[in-house]
Amino acid sequence: MKAYLDCYPCFLRQALSASRHAGADPQQQLAVVRRSLSLLEKLPAEATPPEIAYRLHGIVREEIGAADPYRQAKKESTRQALALYPDLKERVRRSHDPIDTALRLSIAGNIIDLGAADDYDNLEKVIERVLSQPFAVDHRRRLLTALDRADHVLFLADNAGETVFDRILIETLSIPTVYAVKKSPIINDATANDAEEAGLDGITTVVDNGTDAPGTVLPLCTREFIEAFEAAPVVIAKGQANYETLSESDPKVFCLLQIKCPVIARDIGAPVGGIAVLQARSRS
Amino acid sequence: MKAYLDCYPCFLRQALSASRHAGADPQQQLAVVRRSLSLLEKLPAEATPPEIAYRLHGIVREEIGAADPYRQAKKESTRQALALYPDLKERVRRSHDPIDTALRLSIAGNIIDLGAADDYDNLEKVIERVLSQPFAVDHRRRLLTALDRADHVLFLADNAGETVFDRILIETLSIPTVYAVKKSPIINDATANDAEEAGLDGITTVVDNGTDAPGTVLPLCTREFIEAFEAAPVVIAKGQANYETLSESDPKVFCLLQIKCPVIARDIGAPVGGIAVLQARSRS
Repeated sequence: MKAYLDCYPCFLRQALSASRHAGADPQQQLAVVRRSLSLLEKLPAEATPPEIAYRLHGIVREEIGAADPYRQAKKESTRQALALYPDLKERVRRSHDPIDTALRLSIAGNIIDLGAADDYDNLEKVIERVLSQPFAVDHRRRLLTALDRADHVLFLADNAGETVFDRILIETLSIPTVYAVKKSPIINDATANDAEEAGLDGITTVVDNGTDAPGTVLPLCTREFIEAFEAAPVVIAKGQANYETLSESDPKVFCLLQIKCPVIARDIGAPVGGIAVLQARSRS
Repeated sequence: MKAYLDCYPCFLRQALSASRHAGADPQQQLAVVRRSLSLLEKLPAEATPPEIAYRLHGIVREEIGAADPYRQAKKESTRQALALYPDLKERVRRSHDPIDTALRLSIAGNIIDLGAADDYDNLEKVIERVLSQPFAVDHRRRLLTALDRADHVLFLADNAGETVFDRILIETLSIPTVYAVKKSPIINDATANDAEEAGLDGITTVVDNGTDAPGTVLPLCTREFIEAFEAAPVVIAKGQANYETLSESDPKVFCLLQIKCPVIARDIGAPVGGIAVLQARSRS
């Protein structure tokens, strides 16, 4: 999905928010905003939102010198999610359809996104909503069929804390998973360290995609990751950035996400606040 | 109030929204956004939000060639408000405190703002909220005392449609008013034409301030308007843009507004969604 003009204000907000997470003083914030304005002015028409966000967060890193502005926020999200873990496991255990409950919980965790907005809604409220709301895009049956036929699944992680919700889905699936995170920090996206803090070691094979770009920008990924992607019979891709980079890639990719912004909503054709299990189209 | 960095994303949203109101095609929208980015990059630190908005809307006018992009939106807002007018008059008539009810209705009408956001909430819901909610800033007593001592009041209008709600307050006040509108169109701000459509002719003296800048940028106003401003014993200034341009001017100015954005909220020290009757400070 290419960036829309409506994304530009949001990019600017995101750059400013990231600079504050990095502890920027007002002069540094102004420098980040001015460089971001200049970058947006010269943007090629075909750039995708994650590619642009990648460059904006690079500006923040250069101006402020902080390698991981969202470190504390990520730790706090993981802590919050782990506190809910025992109760969520119990819900899956008691569910008449454990896979569906675990799938919904993984999507509920996608609210933990510090790119789409500066903060996220109360987790408990979001969980109750997502456990009962109808799907805006519902390719669940196709996903379950694909999983039935697969010997493993490649799981593309999104944010720290959301990792705990993914852990519940991974623990509920009956086939092995490979859990792909970012190599180094970008926004609040999960790295191997965040996956470990969420307790994912031992229950899945954690790998990184070799990049610190949001979503999955395949041309930037390592050869090992690309081979794993190509060999995977099914791919579960979490969150908006993975939707933006993979919605036109391969029908074996299923995007699991909450629709958090009006641009994605328009692209999908479903309302903000909606939840989706969406099968990717082939690259046209 | 000078512009904060947090205003920049909102300026960009506003320029894009205005270009669409003006019927811009995608190429024209891109041109408006790029010129807006360039303008924001070179902004002097002391610029106020209405001054910046003024220049951005100038870009829209130049690129699209539309003199009044919000013409239809303004007509529709006035039509909506006029449909509510008989019921609102009846509420004031039955109120045990007609001035307070009329004051609240004038503030309720301030929701009709196509600068602060691309759309506004359902009018009837907003009216019920504002009629009963506590004031976030409550200088009502000072305003009423000032009105008691005054022989007339200068009323600085904000948006078309909001004019109908102001009409109810003007009809309830026991002293004559002068109602100042914009000379020519900017966003959905009221002009003399909009005031006439709201039925204000005959019940107040409609004047214009000589500008098409949002808020009241005194150095841009005509000599006649400045003299009227200086001679007025009390000034009622409607909306955020008047707050931004007049909150530090003269204690005879009372800002009546709904707090619709986080930057204004922080500047005032009250939450978004709050309502205010706020006495201006002297220029420091």
